[in-house]
Amino acid sequence: MLKVYEATCTAPINIAVIKYWGKRDTKLNLPTNSSLSVTLSQDDLHTKTTCRAAPELKADKLWLNGKEEIIAQNKRLTNVINEMRAQRKKLEENDNSLPKIADYKLHICSANNFPTAAGLASSAAGFACLTFSLATLYQLKLDNVELSTIARTGSGSACRSLQGGYVAWEMGEKEDGSDSHAIQVASREHWPDMQAIILVVNDAKKKTSSTLGMQHTVATSPLIQHRIKHVVPKAMEDMKTAIQNKDFDSFAEITMRDSNSFHAVCADTFPPIYYMNDISRAVVNAVHDYNAAKAAMGSAQKYTVAYTFDAGPNAVLYVQKKDADNVLGVISRIFPAAEDKNIYSGFNFNDQEIDEVLAKMNTPIYPQMNAFKRIIATKVGDGPRVLANEFNDEVSLLNANGEPKELL
Amino acid sequence: MLKVYEATCTAPINIAVIKYWGKRDTKLNLPTNSSLSVTLSQDDLHTKTTCRAAPELKADKLWLNGKEEIIAQNKRLTNVINEMRAQRKKLEENDNSLPKIADYKLHICSANNFPTAAGLASSAAGFACLTFSLATLYQLKLDNVELSTIARTGSGSACRSLQGGYVAWEMGEKEDGSDSHAIQVASREHWPDMQAIILVVNDAKKKTSSTLGMQHTVATSPLIQHRIKHVVPKAMEDMKTAIQNKDFDSFAEITMRDSNSFHAVCADTFPPIYYMNDISRAVVNAVHDYNAAKAAMGSAQKYTVAYTFDAGPNAVLYVQKKDADNVLGVISRIFPAAEDKNIYSGFNFNDQEIDEVLAKMNTPIYPQMNAFKRIIATKVGDGPRVLANEFNDEVSLLNANGEPKELL
Repeated sequence: MLKVYEATCTAPINIAVIKYWGKRDTKLNLPTNSSLSVTLSQDDLHTKTTCRAAPELKADKLWLNGKEEIIAQNKRLTNVINEMRAQRKKLEENDNSLPKIADYKLHICSANNFPTAAGLASSAAGFACLTFSLATLYQLKLDNVELSTIARTGSGSACRSLQGGYVAWEMGEKEDGSDSHAIQVASREHWPDMQAIILVVNDAKKKTSSTLGMQHTVATSPLIQHRIKHVVPKAMEDMKTAIQNKDFDSFAEITMRDSNSFHAVCADTFPPIYYMNDISRAVVNAVHDYNAAKAAMGSAQKYTVAYTFDAGPNAVLYVQKKDADNVLGVISRIFPAAEDKNIYSGFNFNDQEIDEVLAKMNTPIYPQMNAFKRIIATKVGDGPRVLANEFNDEVSLLNANGEPKELL
Repeated sequence: MLKVYEATCTAPINIAVIKYWGKRDTKLNLPTNSSLSVTLSQDDLHTKTTCRAAPELKADKLWLNGKEEIIAQNKRLTNVINEMRAQRKKLEENDNSLPKIADYKLHICSANNFPTAAGLASSAAGFACLTFSLATLYQLKLDNVELSTIARTGSGSACRSLQGGYVAWEMGEKEDGSDSHAIQVASREHWPDMQAIILVVNDAKKKTSSTLGMQHTVATSPLIQHRIKHVVPKAMEDMKTAIQNKDFDSFAEITMRDSNSFHAVCADTFPPIYYMNDISRAVVNAVHDYNAAKAAMGSAQKYTVAYTFDAGPNAVLYVQKKDADNVLGVISRIFPAAEDKNIYSGFNFNDQEIDEVLAKMNTPIYPQMNAFKRIIATKVGDGPRVLANEFNDEVSLLNANGEPKELL
């Protein structure tokens, strides 16, 4: 068998606390405003990608969660793959000692460790992982900021998944997008006890894709111009300061206000776009009620927990480690699960502490059982990881013939 | 029995197509933006008020829907009653021939012909009727514009219920509010075939009062400043033109956009305020789908029906006479009522015409039965009416002793 070049990597998802909504350039995915996110732990949620370059491969092929995607029909994939190959080509031209693998065809296999049913935007992790694993395969000398610029052309928010901790996507000004990239505001180690609780809402109806949705909002909402020009720039500065100071109260208020502002401009779109449903709104009310109750109980914090909602009904709660169990415990009482599908069974709750907070709250028990179909409790995480920079059957998603292994 | 002075009047409700949300002066009810509404027919919905002034009355008393209200404890009531009495006093001082009835105590009895359960803002009709009936009792020489300025001090939107047809509340600039009053944009006769269908949504949970809600929005929403300064002023001008031209397409689009803008700034409030629920949003989507279907069927109109939502989940649909039955018929299929509580039974639908539109629509049948508890179909109406300007037992709400008659 001829020499096989291969890399297998994982990349994390990220959940924005200042939302990306609106493109000024749809080809290059250049945004109308900067955004900021928290990278979540790959121990819980990640995309894994194997990239192989080998002389015996006949054509570029790519599989997503076991299903083949026709690369040529997917502009976002070709953007990233062509650019990475061009970067390798440049290296090889400047250094004859390097093997000429840029000319080899590629087999790429990518899979999420969480079901799409979880309703999490997987394209960010997916394109971050594709970019990072190709950079590893090709041994490119690009830093995370340069990589983020390339990942951005695949999926805007992917640029924020190339680093761990707290990451800002600076919108930039240049027409070619070369200054529209992600920068780490603070590492996971700077503020390690940030946790995220994802409440996956039971919701059948299909939603407007965020790509289409943000175009409609920019085209029809008068209010988004105010958000772009005045609301977000201040929120970005305030959020960076809050993270530097590990100021959870400020982090929480800016996060909740920005989520509200984002869904407000969606509602101002014509026709309006609604991503949150009655369950989502009940979570919002419960969070404000919970925070008020804790403050009334003498908590030093104004906010114990913050909500944020992406382009869907699922709630993501940010909370500090010390408060996570109590917050989820109270949620489990307000949004009860049926015996046979108890999504809360994996957690250890302190019933007495839960009762104390509930006694101070006014939120009624949500009338519908099983409002959530899944709970994911995770924490702030690190950036993409290299599992192998050569063929390694233990971690590779491709078998010896370059076909995807059976994924369960 | 001594001479009794009495007047009995009715006043209509109005539903804004450009919403009033935000006060620049809470004492005088001076708004942060102008608004515009359609006055609905008193034949269907009205407040009726009897005002009596007589020497044998011992104290000012007022009954609302059979329940006594302590006037002294209600700033909004005292504002209006004191001002009207002062106006009468002035007349009497300038003309000795007039009976001195300003010094007589007042008994006032007011009742709506629709249940509060209907979830319609009754304070507008209530304060309009109180002002108008006192003006009739006291035989004041005030025009509707002057009366609207007084009614406004009781309830802001009441000033728009003092005239029929299409009414603008110009916000004014003066600190004393003397230029913040309602003006008729067009009479009912100018555009008589405007109809309104009120879908009263089944909804248990109590909502934030609009008085408190609008204060929170002004205090905490960054986006409302853009609505106030830029969105509403243009919408007011465009809406006046649309009404002058009887241009339903423009009327409909401005109405729907303003409702969306209003609920967007509510969602941008911190904590957010949600008046619409999943049923309300399903109506919005159904209306856009219906309009698209009719356009696809070759309708000359871009919009056949428009929605608007006040500070609650109920939908108000504006539609021209020719389209009203088909619109409600389609609604009755998408939001089915159970046999035993068929709120649609009073209407005659053309099933074939309904099927033709439904065949072009993508909106699924709403999963929950009885999404609405009541349907009110009405039309544009006239201004307040004088039923009697002296004691008339046939119409009076007070008996000979000045106590409320048994209602119903």
